[in-house]
Amino acid sequence: MKFFTDKCCLPPPTLERLARLYTLLGRLEEAQTRRVTSRALEGLLSVPCHTIRKDISLLGAAAKAERGYDVAALRQTLGLRLGLSAGYSVCLVGLGRLGGAILNQAGADRRYPLAAAFDASMNRIELTRTDVPLYHSTQISRVVREKAITAGIITVPPHAAWEAAERLIAGGARGIVNFSPVIITAADKPVVVRNISLTGELDVIAAYIHMQGV
Amino acid sequence: MKFFTDKCCLPPPTLERLARLYTLLGRLEEAQTRRVTSRALEGLLSVPCHTIRKDISLLGAAAKAERGYDVAALRQTLGLRLGLSAGYSVCLVGLGRLGGAILNQAGADRRYPLAAAFDASMNRIELTRTDVPLYHSTQISRVVREKAITAGIITVPPHAAWEAAERLIAGGARGIVNFSPVIITAADKPVVVRNISLTGELDVIAAYIHMQGV
Repeated sequence: MKFFTDKCCLPPPTLERLARLYTLLGRLEEAQTRRVTSRALEGLLSVPCHTIRKDISLLGAAAKAERGYDVAALRQTLGLRLGLSAGYSVCLVGLGRLGGAILNQAGADRRYPLAAAFDASMNRIELTRTDVPLYHSTQISRVVREKAITAGIITVPPHAAWEAAERLIAGGARGIVNFSPVIITAADKPVVVRNISLTGELDVIAAYIHMQGV
Repeated sequence: MKFFTDKCCLPPPTLERLARLYTLLGRLEEAQTRRVTSRALEGLLSVPCHTIRKDISLLGAAAKAERGYDVAALRQTLGLRLGLSAGYSVCLVGLGRLGGAILNQAGADRRYPLAAAFDASMNRIELTRTDVPLYHSTQISRVVREKAITAGIITVPPHAAWEAAERLIAGGARGIVNFSPVIITAADKPVVVRNISLTGELDVIAAYIHMQGV
């Protein structure tokens, strides 16, 4: 294989696009879609089709002219090369409304099982009904270490977000999806942080409408 | 001004990075941060600092050597050029757990006031307490048109997502933030769609860990 000889050289934007493509292909498979063209993917991913073709060519996969890609085969290739097929255990920090919504969907995603959830309120822990084991927030580092949890989802109020992140990282977590409105950064640590923000998405929409006259 | 003479030529990745930067600068301002270097922004945005400097230079703004950018001034420039200062009205479709969490935070974001919320269950509408006007989902197109709502947030179950999107677009909405697990596309319409997915974020983290040995 001549592709990906130097793993670190794959540019982050390509990596993110290919990971998003993997997520999308899973949904297309569920919808019984067998083949998909790069032009159709352009509409689904909001990425130019030539960029999509170039990204995929880095994996050594190619589309047959006019017939597009085989959805299942491309997804399998992506899963193997990007290490996505296996999945990993995740935990949830914060059992408020958003945390409750995520907890409620636990088990829906077989690749990312929810192995634990945490909250700072013992009262809330006692009132929450779920099959997911619940713990007090002070136990985050210990539980993450013992259960070998790879990533944490943060849905706590702003003032508690940094402490949650520090506890996750102290326990050995290597990824964080942060839904709190505080920006979390871990530039000096080997941790991938994804800060998700509704306002940020509304800003992107505003910029597109303004700049491109969409 | 020699910048942005051809609005449509600003590449979407630059547009999205600048919009994310605007969101971030707002949070830095709230935290009383006066100045920020491109290197600090690299850690906060997970974007290389030379890319950040290049993006910002397209706006005609520049950092003073070693002192970085003035947070408030840069945010103001971005807001004007990207059309983000004004904001717009949004609506929410779906009053389940996630929708309830978003409804609960309504009013927190002055730039994107929630002008209406919708659900397919009259029972749920009657049980929901909020200052936001609530309507049945069949009213989406009419209310979006009458209130001149610019964007809709979709938090309905998968089977109802497409219908929600179609009703929003029929009412004149130009942006959609979709939290349902169905991918919504509007490639043939003048609508910006942002599909947000927890699984997608966990996929990106998995890819980073696998490929870059993070």
